[in-house]
Amino acid sequence: MAAASARQVNIAIIGAGGVGKCFLSQLEQLAARRPSPKVVLTYICTSKKAIYSTDHVAIPLNTVSSTLASSQQAPLALPKLVDFLGTSGSKTVLVDNTSSQDVADAYPLFLSRGISIVTPNKKAFSGSYKLWQDIFGAAEQSGAKVYHESSVGAGLPVISTLKDLVDTGDEVTKVEGVFSGTMSFLFNSFAPTSGSGGKWSAEVKKAKELGYTEPDPRDDLNGLDVARKLTILARLAGLPVESPAAFPVQSLIPKELESVASGDEFLEKLPAFDAQMEETKAAAEKEGKVVRFVGSIDVATKQVKVGLEKFDLSHPIAALKGSDNIISFYTKRYGSNPLIIQGAGAGGEVTAMGVTSDLLKVLSQIA
Amino acid sequence: MAAASARQVNIAIIGAGGVGKCFLSQLEQLAARRPSPKVVLTYICTSKKAIYSTDHVAIPLNTVSSTLASSQQAPLALPKLVDFLGTSGSKTVLVDNTSSQDVADAYPLFLSRGISIVTPNKKAFSGSYKLWQDIFGAAEQSGAKVYHESSVGAGLPVISTLKDLVDTGDEVTKVEGVFSGTMSFLFNSFAPTSGSGGKWSAEVKKAKELGYTEPDPRDDLNGLDVARKLTILARLAGLPVESPAAFPVQSLIPKELESVASGDEFLEKLPAFDAQMEETKAAAEKEGKVVRFVGSIDVATKQVKVGLEKFDLSHPIAALKGSDNIISFYTKRYGSNPLIIQGAGAGGEVTAMGVTSDLLKVLSQIA
Repeated sequence: MAAASARQVNIAIIGAGGVGKCFLSQLEQLAARRPSPKVVLTYICTSKKAIYSTDHVAIPLNTVSSTLASSQQAPLALPKLVDFLGTSGSKTVLVDNTSSQDVADAYPLFLSRGISIVTPNKKAFSGSYKLWQDIFGAAEQSGAKVYHESSVGAGLPVISTLKDLVDTGDEVTKVEGVFSGTMSFLFNSFAPTSGSGGKWSAEVKKAKELGYTEPDPRDDLNGLDVARKLTILARLAGLPVESPAAFPVQSLIPKELESVASGDEFLEKLPAFDAQMEETKAAAEKEGKVVRFVGSIDVATKQVKVGLEKFDLSHPIAALKGSDNIISFYTKRYGSNPLIIQGAGAGGEVTAMGVTSDLLKVLSQIA
Repeated sequence: MAAASARQVNIAIIGAGGVGKCFLSQLEQLAARRPSPKVVLTYICTSKKAIYSTDHVAIPLNTVSSTLASSQQAPLALPKLVDFLGTSGSKTVLVDNTSSQDVADAYPLFLSRGISIVTPNKKAFSGSYKLWQDIFGAAEQSGAKVYHESSVGAGLPVISTLKDLVDTGDEVTKVEGVFSGTMSFLFNSFAPTSGSGGKWSAEVKKAKELGYTEPDPRDDLNGLDVARKLTILARLAGLPVESPAAFPVQSLIPKELESVASGDEFLEKLPAFDAQMEETKAAAEKEGKVVRFVGSIDVATKQVKVGLEKFDLSHPIAALKGSDNIISFYTKRYGSNPLIIQGAGAGGEVTAMGVTSDLLKVLSQIA
């Protein structure tokens, strides 16, 4: 395949944190395993540092982390980065491994210049509906690709499955699931299907100690992360949801603790509100059910909501383990038994896997 | 998008049975919804009849079923079909909606001529390992694509997920699941997680009456269908399994009934063997478990097997409903909690959905 081996695709990466590091390692393996198309890293940056050269020289993948740490170059401003990548003469894929709204806002610009994008960044697809339209409009115009599997459920095939259902003409009637690893862990411990579980505040504290929550647990308990994911899925299912603020999202932060200064102070004061959650749990138990924090999209009635719901013990959502996500697609073709996808929905390696597999899909189309 | 709308891809279809009819209807919708690339049906045949013209004129999709029924043309022999499609001057995708070994054996020939293939036909990928190598070798050489999502689990994203795991460098350690809708239905009724279930022979009879079995239920009970699917997945996971006969497959046909003349006679005589299955069920119950017909692949020990296994009541395999399939991927990245895919694994519409979504993937790459 002499002709094929000449193909080359440039890669630019923004972000080298948890997901970014895992992605770099997967990219290095990929480049070693697959000679064609040749992937060449020509730009990488964190918020402070960058590596690139004006003549787009390949950055060696095996030493990139240490080179980046000692680099004296500053990142290019986004419009300059667009120009830099757009004038390389090679097909280019931007890998955005940040959760930055600024980078997301620049997607239409990158795409309009023919630069494809793969990313786990939720902000681009759950911001304003106008940004969503601008992104996919720019991609349609230029033929550049944009893939974001890891924006929901990390590496789980959630976005691709929903797209396949819609693109092949199925009618998605309802999407329902547990979309947060943190919430999954909390409720599987607080209200297990067998045994009694711990006190709510104790479970939140434990989850934080185990690294399952954000530094301030309120960033998980406010439900916004789940609302962002639901916004993305609802739009893919055909509902033009304006933003994550456009539908009811139940916050598990007691009103009185919304404005306390720190996550630590929040955790200190949370036990005073245990009775409230205990009551919710007991009400479910009375019906032989357990309580779970779920998101759902009812396509026919256009209702999207995020919050607590009760489930029979035998329901797959009740039976979830650890910090797993579960997503059920109810469709016309699949009838009363949904298509279900389940597994780890967070973590550096599995999130990076979604990004890498998106990159492979883009390469197969543009190279 | 003037340039893009000029792109055209020819489609040739073999088979217009259950899956084939559903696919035709999905293709018609697809062509109406997506102007680019333009998909043009230039050949379609059943085992007896065909429609095509030597100058590759488009066959109208809305009337193809009735035109085919009244057609006086005979199908082209496979080598002639290869020539016919290979000389059209347009990119071409062959959709094989049969379960024919003859058609499968001709895949390397189609592929070597640059004709891409999408198909639910298990025979091509679960036959001899040599045929597997010839198929993917021919595709690699010519650049033609070959997709077969529906060969395992119908439209469920099983093949694509396993490929993504492998292609992104994850290490698949084990694959386990219920791969047959018939077996799923039988055991969910015979050994339910709550209640006592019916007699084995009565459940088989009921399954046949409901259309869940092949005309002769022995074609399901011999386990070969599951063995074929396991062969495909094992090969994708990196094991060069020689054929479905290369590993242990438990048949649920009593030896004495293997050679009775008909499915009806088999069903008549089956009750005499109920005690055997009852014993298996009771042994599982004694351990607080239920029995299920599963397939598993242990990649490290290279063990593939198909047959009865016992599962805790809380295990997702035990909790399966109706005739659903469930497939669990255990990998290095996903750790102790597997990535699970669950839902209907048979039926015309969902099988055709897998074929249609494969076609979309091929179109995105070749058009």
